[in-house]
Amino acid sequence: MDTLFIIKIGGNIIDDDKAFHSFLRDFASLDAKKILVHGGGKIATKIGELMGIKANYVDGRRITDVASIDLVTMVYGGLVNKQIVADLQSMHCNAIGLTGADADLIPAEKRPIGKIDFGFVGDIKSSGIVPSKWQLLLEHELVPVLAPLTHDGKGQMLNTNADTIASALAIALSYNYQVRLIYCFEKQGVLENVDDDSTVIHMINTARYAQLLSDKRLADGILPKIDNAFAAIDNGVKEVLIGYAKDLLQNCTQDVKGTLFK
Amino acid sequence: MDTLFIIKIGGNIIDDDKAFHSFLRDFASLDAKKILVHGGGKIATKIGELMGIKANYVDGRRITDVASIDLVTMVYGGLVNKQIVADLQSMHCNAIGLTGADADLIPAEKRPIGKIDFGFVGDIKSSGIVPSKWQLLLEHELVPVLAPLTHDGKGQMLNTNADTIASALAIALSYNYQVRLIYCFEKQGVLENVDDDSTVIHMINTARYAQLLSDKRLADGILPKIDNAFAAIDNGVKEVLIGYAKDLLQNCTQDVKGTLFK
Repeated sequence: MDTLFIIKIGGNIIDDDKAFHSFLRDFASLDAKKILVHGGGKIATKIGELMGIKANYVDGRRITDVASIDLVTMVYGGLVNKQIVADLQSMHCNAIGLTGADADLIPAEKRPIGKIDFGFVGDIKSSGIVPSKWQLLLEHELVPVLAPLTHDGKGQMLNTNADTIASALAIALSYNYQVRLIYCFEKQGVLENVDDDSTVIHMINTARYAQLLSDKRLADGILPKIDNAFAAIDNGVKEVLIGYAKDLLQNCTQDVKGTLFK
Repeated sequence: MDTLFIIKIGGNIIDDDKAFHSFLRDFASLDAKKILVHGGGKIATKIGELMGIKANYVDGRRITDVASIDLVTMVYGGLVNKQIVADLQSMHCNAIGLTGADADLIPAEKRPIGKIDFGFVGDIKSSGIVPSKWQLLLEHELVPVLAPLTHDGKGQMLNTNADTIASALAIALSYNYQVRLIYCFEKQGVLENVDDDSTVIHMINTARYAQLLSDKRLADGILPKIDNAFAAIDNGVKEVLIGYAKDLLQNCTQDVKGTLFK
């Protein structure tokens, strides 16, 4: 099976022009099958403010109302996605910018109204992700660039977390590829000492994780990320990595700078 | 050779929710290989006004400055394009929303500065349109939905007229498909009497055109459209049709309601 890198890049890097351009250069130069999933960044909030769209919160949780779904469809699906595509094309990377609505690549449903109505937020219908559609693109050396948007199949675009899209894709494609799912974030990896970047743990498997937990060596903040990583591993993804955006290329080798879960 | 319909829909229909939805239903139901090219509509101007972006004119010609290219990338490439895709998907039409930057489908160059600097406007490099990329999509029953945007291959998105995209595509794909290029507009077709919708001329070939011209039976306003149609015919496109959006399905048959050029 071919290796497939599914790489998620978040808003804080996207907001930093120089760091983001450098990240895209590294991504473009990676000679392998690959998919980029991007978050949004502050630009949507900024454009929303210019348009008089107010962020709407209930119990501290952001709600995607009608104005907000149009805003993110436009900013993430248009401005951010197409600028990434144009940049990657200039670096000879044959990028194709997509949302989950395009070719029905990532079907979803509006999150059911529970204690909170989150509005136009999409929960991915994982069983609806059809690997052959992705293979068609990947086998023809196209590089999908995914905006954090899905649709409900009834004409409604939905806002969906980029981390969740990346892990759902990784799981769906794990029968067809040896997937390494890489979450790029602002630290070098999982640290033994949260205040010391030199204490990156380079490999965590379930035995090591149990040990680290019983030794109480992990910061609380990292635990949900680790649980996510193991959820992907448990569902067929070969490797999950958490690392720093600027270490992307090294983190695509076996000699990683970040934290590899396997 | 298979027939391929390349259908261009303009802003005035897009702005009319009910008419547009009805047009999309007809488009979705068309059982053939097909590509939709859409214009923008007034929504970009409206959102631009909310954001404080002023339309910039020189000698009566609209200029695409930095703020405007971001605006149209966001509105045409994001909001309008993805809403069309989500709508078509809900109608069981496997739409995939694209710009000319995606997969480098429509390479262009920034229009050279002459008497006027039009800004970020793209002139299509027709020789760069690679039919096999389009065939890959069409042969897998995907339906490309094109926003009126191209790119310069150096990281810059460019604003490009939807009519021009439609005709450049029709010409480029005319070796691989029997292309019928359909321009949907606000009249029923070319009229012998511009004030009488019942006087549609259903077929014009070069001989008939010469006759109509010598008889001075055509309104001045329609001449550029006719010249465009013949330019496509002269470059290998099998048939070009000018007709009303609501007549789309009949205009996809041989018994047309609009004006067919061949």
